[in-house]
Amino acid sequence: MRVLLAASSGFCFGVRRAIQMALEARERDQEVCTLGELIHNPPIVQELREKGITVCDDAHEIRDKVVIIRSHGVSKQELQTLVDNGNTVIDATCPYVKRAQELVASMSDYPVFILGDGEHPEVQGMQSYGNEQTRVVSADEDFSGWRWQKLCVVSQTTQKLGSLQQLVQKLLPQVMELRVFNTICLATTERQEAALCLASRADLMIVIGGRNSANTRMLTQLCATRAKALQIETETELSADAFTGVKLVGITAGASTPEEMIVKVYNKIKEINRDTDLATGLEDIPLFKEESC
Amino acid sequence: MRVLLAASSGFCFGVRRAIQMALEARERDQEVCTLGELIHNPPIVQELREKGITVCDDAHEIRDKVVIIRSHGVSKQELQTLVDNGNTVIDATCPYVKRAQELVASMSDYPVFILGDGEHPEVQGMQSYGNEQTRVVSADEDFSGWRWQKLCVVSQTTQKLGSLQQLVQKLLPQVMELRVFNTICLATTERQEAALCLASRADLMIVIGGRNSANTRMLTQLCATRAKALQIETETELSADAFTGVKLVGITAGASTPEEMIVKVYNKIKEINRDTDLATGLEDIPLFKEESC
Repeated sequence: MRVLLAASSGFCFGVRRAIQMALEARERDQEVCTLGELIHNPPIVQELREKGITVCDDAHEIRDKVVIIRSHGVSKQELQTLVDNGNTVIDATCPYVKRAQELVASMSDYPVFILGDGEHPEVQGMQSYGNEQTRVVSADEDFSGWRWQKLCVVSQTTQKLGSLQQLVQKLLPQVMELRVFNTICLATTERQEAALCLASRADLMIVIGGRNSANTRMLTQLCATRAKALQIETETELSADAFTGVKLVGITAGASTPEEMIVKVYNKIKEINRDTDLATGLEDIPLFKEESC
Repeated sequence: MRVLLAASSGFCFGVRRAIQMALEARERDQEVCTLGELIHNPPIVQELREKGITVCDDAHEIRDKVVIIRSHGVSKQELQTLVDNGNTVIDATCPYVKRAQELVASMSDYPVFILGDGEHPEVQGMQSYGNEQTRVVSADEDFSGWRWQKLCVVSQTTQKLGSLQQLVQKLLPQVMELRVFNTICLATTERQEAALCLASRADLMIVIGGRNSANTRMLTQLCATRAKALQIETETELSADAFTGVKLVGITAGASTPEEMIVKVYNKIKEINRDTDLATGLEDIPLFKEESC
């Protein structure tokens, strides 16, 4: 059995930056917490907790602390509450998410449609910067019969490009001026493209990431269109029967998955299949990345 | 054989308005000419000529006359030449084309893509209002590998909505901000939709309009995807053999085709097929329109 890791998998820049900012804050202060789990990855959240970085869920209940805003960002109102309650706010909002928030705020004379999941904190944060005509929409919605003089579209940073294209395709006939900001982050697009590319060759795709991580779930869905796909949080979820008859296993990982976890999963697969036929000379490289499709 | 006329066929508002403006100018003045043929329909142009409205092709050669700008509009430079040469300019540019020209002019800090036919005077006029980054493009072009921070898209007013959708679909992955103005005129869209609707029931579609009319050619192309389609300028081009085995004939007409010509074509078809089985009671109505699809 051969094991390949999709290029552009795992930790994105925004997540890496948020963790670093949290750890640096913890070095300076005792009372550090994050508003909501810093990233959608339970093992990492647990590790941070062990390092003294706690998780608080309600902005109203945090007073006089150092509060880390996670990479997904936060609503305008929550941010204000934190400041009003005497907290020191360290804003680790991913710069790509920040840009989307700023765009929504700057489009105050347009109705703004946010393509995304209305339950996701990133989208809720973005919406809070909009006017009263700002709506969260999905690409499957039916807009027939509607007419807009002008309309602005932005996207949750982890949406599929295909969904944005589908939405714009549907809106074009009903809108005189359609202003689309492609706020899907490049890391997301690259990760999805690399996963799809590998999935079309693999028999089984292992997708590593939190079950509560939207971008990981989307990766799993995408992979499942080309191969059998299995989403896990840690290597302990793997057992031998998943690999029956599998010749090529692909690995990919969501934006909140650290390289250490990828390595653990890789080693577990190796352990399950002692006879892994990695190309000679690559034995000392724990993972080798598929570079092109 | 049954004959149906597609809803929304023939003369559009812009063309009707331009002819009226030319005739009114001729009532007031002796020396009236149009810059280029007023509309893409030779019989009408001939009729106007007989009424004393001549056609001049080169703006530089017209002096001290009353000049009608046709519904397609004209380039910024030609307009200036006409004014500089002491002419009285009557601007019959279709308000929808005018809006597109003004949009191109107002987007001076964007590269502007005009979806259309670069040989068409409407598109050339629109482009003349743009900056040096203004380009005429087709929906079939390959944009892979390109990247734009921001880009504006407008369309020739007679393009198919599907082409605009195809272009936008292609550009979205390469552009951070895509600002699309749907400048396709509603009359064009309605005419195309009605023609397609009728063509999917008819055995033969007769499309009336000038052979040099872009919107008529596009109608013919669209109809040909659903039925046999025949494009004609006048009723004299019709002969009996075109109707062999035909049970339902559909008629549609381009934006420059007057109702009189539609009636002439209809009467010629009736003459060819004396046994036309129009529903009783409709005999005194020369044409009846298909209202829904």
